Amino acid sequence: MSKGLPNRDTDFSAWYNQVVKRADLADHGPVKGTMVIKPYGFQLWDNIKEAFDKMIKATGHVNAYFPLFIPKSFLAKEAQHVEGFAKECAVVTHTRLKADEKLGIIVDPDSKLEEEIIVRPTSETVIWAMYKKWIQSYRDLPLLINQWANVVRWEMRTRLFLRTSEFLWQEGHTAHATAEEAQKETLDILELYRQLAEDYLAMPVLTGLKSESEKFAGADKTYCIEAMMGDKRALQAGTSHNLGQNFARAFDVTFQTKDNKEELVWATSWGVSTRLVGAVILTHGDEKGLRLPPKIAPIQVVIIPIARNEEQEKLVKDYLVPITESLEKVNIRIHQDWSDRSPGFKFNEWEMKGVPLRLEVGPRDVENGNVVLARRDIGEKEFLSKDEAVNKIPGLLDEIQDGLFQQALKFQLDNTHKVSTYDEMKKVIKEGGFVRCGWDGTSETEAKVKTEIKATIRCIPTDENPEGLICIYSGVPAKHEVIYAKAY
Amino acid sequence: MSKGLPNRDTDFSAWYNQVVKRADLADHGPVKGTMVIKPYGFQLWDNIKEAFDKMIKATGHVNAYFPLFIPKSFLAKEAQHVEGFAKECAVVTHTRLKADEKLGIIVDPDSKLEEEIIVRPTSETVIWAMYKKWIQSYRDLPLLINQWANVVRWEMRTRLFLRTSEFLWQEGHTAHATAEEAQKETLDILELYRQLAEDYLAMPVLTGLKSESEKFAGADKTYCIEAMMGDKRALQAGTSHNLGQNFARAFDVTFQTKDNKEELVWATSWGVSTRLVGAVILTHGDEKGLRLPPKIAPIQVVIIPIARNEEQEKLVKDYLVPITESLEKVNIRIHQDWSDRSPGFKFNEWEMKGVPLRLEVGPRDVENGNVVLARRDIGEKEFLSKDEAVNKIPGLLDEIQDGLFQQALKFQLDNTHKVSTYDEMKKVIKEGGFVRCGWDGTSETEAKVKTEIKATIRCIPTDENPEGLICIYSGVPAKHEVIYAKAY
Repeated sequence: MSKGLPNRDTDFSAWYNQVVKRADLADHGPVKGTMVIKPYGFQLWDNIKEAFDKMIKATGHVNAYFPLFIPKSFLAKEAQHVEGFAKECAVVTHTRLKADEKLGIIVDPDSKLEEEIIVRPTSETVIWAMYKKWIQSYRDLPLLINQWANVVRWEMRTRLFLRTSEFLWQEGHTAHATAEEAQKETLDILELYRQLAEDYLAMPVLTGLKSESEKFAGADKTYCIEAMMGDKRALQAGTSHNLGQNFARAFDVTFQTKDNKEELVWATSWGVSTRLVGAVILTHGDEKGLRLPPKIAPIQVVIIPIARNEEQEKLVKDYLVPITESLEKVNIRIHQDWSDRSPGFKFNEWEMKGVPLRLEVGPRDVENGNVVLARRDIGEKEFLSKDEAVNKIPGLLDEIQDGLFQQALKFQLDNTHKVSTYDEMKKVIKEGGFVRCGWDGTSETEAKVKTEIKATIRCIPTDENPEGLICIYSGVPAKHEVIYAKAY
Repeated sequence: MSKGLPNRDTDFSAWYNQVVKRADLADHGPVKGTMVIKPYGFQLWDNIKEAFDKMIKATGHVNAYFPLFIPKSFLAKEAQHVEGFAKECAVVTHTRLKADEKLGIIVDPDSKLEEEIIVRPTSETVIWAMYKKWIQSYRDLPLLINQWANVVRWEMRTRLFLRTSEFLWQEGHTAHATAEEAQKETLDILELYRQLAEDYLAMPVLTGLKSESEKFAGADKTYCIEAMMGDKRALQAGTSHNLGQNFARAFDVTFQTKDNKEELVWATSWGVSTRLVGAVILTHGDEKGLRLPPKIAPIQVVIIPIARNEEQEKLVKDYLVPITESLEKVNIRIHQDWSDRSPGFKFNEWEMKGVPLRLEVGPRDVENGNVVLARRDIGEKEFLSKDEAVNKIPGLLDEIQDGLFQQALKFQLDNTHKVSTYDEMKKVIKEGGFVRCGWDGTSETEAKVKTEIKATIRCIPTDENPEGLICIYSGVPAKHEVIYAKAY
């Protein structure tokens, strides 16, 4: 912990990698592109998971579990879908190893599978194959199922949390009797994603619609939440897809309507992943490391006892008992660090790990009935009586939660620019930030901007107003107002 | 629901399959041997998971996540380990699909991996490769990490929940400074497994040590919990392994002791899986279907309103409001079934699904301030005032929990026989039950008994007393007292 982090302003990428490592969040797995989520990082993910799991259960969704393995032929049933995922599939071809005298342990050639198996990159195909068995009549609808699972997409360029060959996520897969219901579900979930990002991760997001070229392979429409990271680049943090009848058609899933007709089922799917952990780091981290929103922080208050000998240790330990009991009673997540490191080392370590509040207690504090309380977000430190501290902490955590959100929101607004010429746009994209402007709606324009200045359309924002706008690139009247940015 | 189940006494296996299906617990996935865990079955697993997760966290363990993919060479590092798992490995060899004009979607031969990848059958190897990076000194020990994950073992003969190619489980992997600590951890976890089985699943178990031939591939010692199923066969419900220094040696994981020596680390690993759901069915199920222990039941009280018209519906609905509110206030998991099926259909369905208590309310009950309360476990039905019912339910659920355990315990004791001749043993094994007798400690005897009468040594029970016993097969003085049985 003695050495500083790489400079966040000049080398954001190296800064990110070091924060992940030194905050003890994750490590690289032995197979290229895989990730080990370490206990502290996993608890962070688990808190995000728990928050969202409650939201979807409160809205009538249930959890289930579908198999990891998908027959190759299933993946191929929806043409767009297989095209989208073909280039990044882990393929299982054999089922046994055997010992070979010369080569050691080898794959047994006699165990070759007749049909190759794909490790799920996403589960639409296997789930719709099951829905065909489960859905007969309107009585079986809607089906509102979610799963928490691991998926695999073979990636060439990986970053811990942001892009890994295997990642953890939730994927919701719903089936409906009408197009309207499916569209409503798609947007309801988008709203839950917005709430998760803003209310729990303290991360302001734009909600909007993806362009045709950026939508999910197999969807009619993809909606997303997009956030601005600390380097002013965009990060897609969650997507909600209206799949129309595409998967029902591919898997021949029909239902009997109330008036005895046979119709294809309407579908949605939606997901957020461990990428959100990366988003939290990139949104709130600073030159001292991580800063965690209290609602999802594994530890909300870290207690650093300061004692030079056993006598002082006992003194401090006894003094802390009623304090920790009071905090635990109101469900504050606390941790006491009694390890044999120096106080300075511990301060740095827990700052690196982003714990929202630090409570210090030394022998003199015991004497005076005081504690020291330090905020991670703005670095302020104050002396308080122990009762004041206990009473103040819950409100202070709320304040920090809100403060992180407001700071990130200001950053996003300050760095989002309405521009009217391509030159202005180039300047913003080069210096960093979101551009809000008109788009003629063609994929040609989109592709050219991407090639020329590496900016992509992040979304057509929900609150777009294309009236009177012209396309920033082609100059013709705009069909949509869009957000352009460089993205993760 | 109209047709009955297969006869539980004469065709236990068909009975099991039908209960899984008709209680809506699980379904077969498209790839042979895979399983879809349906929402009701998943909630059951989730309740088991939550109970055990609390236990391990209370004893200082933390969760993390390690990769699904293991390099083939890693698996081969521990000789016993690879021998144990080689015959059931899913092997990933390619990373892309492509379109072929004649053949459609094919595996891209150009995407062949240099080193094949194994889909984890268990995670010792990948975890110990990481522990090598994380463990340097005694300060880093003990490391008490668990993960909830999916694993794959390619099985030829599969049964839903009991034996599937992919299953969900927890796997704990701990690292210690001394042999004594590792042995203590192994036995502490065994005790947690016993508590989970007996206190939550209401399933009595024997704890004990596995014989050499039945132990985990790579372990020094394997301890287990073994339960008797409704057909008197044994089911291994959880295992806790003392791995000695085997994996530390294979992955060269040493640590610096307090007095500056370099020593190999000591290890344990332990797991329970979705197999426990199968165990619950096989232990408590009866001729009407599932019977669930209240502590893990997704629904503890199902409410069946009985109404013939809208007026009655409204009457019953209003009457139920304070009842459900009172029950929810004391955290009882309830479900109201307002679907348009007949009461008889609903009674059968929820009995099939094993809900511990059914509460019926019709217009006449409303008039008299009554409800009908029916127990799933013993089929008793009583009229009560609504207040009596609300007050009685929590205690009744405890009574049912205990009753199921006592019934299963009696069954296990009644069908466990101390025998002193091989002929007696043959008879018990043929008719069903556990045999408790002497064993000479040789793998020859074990193998012969297995071949001749298909009984295996389930464990050397913790409370064994070999004194004065002779080996049931060889007649020489017994080294151990053991439990023999046919097993799942």
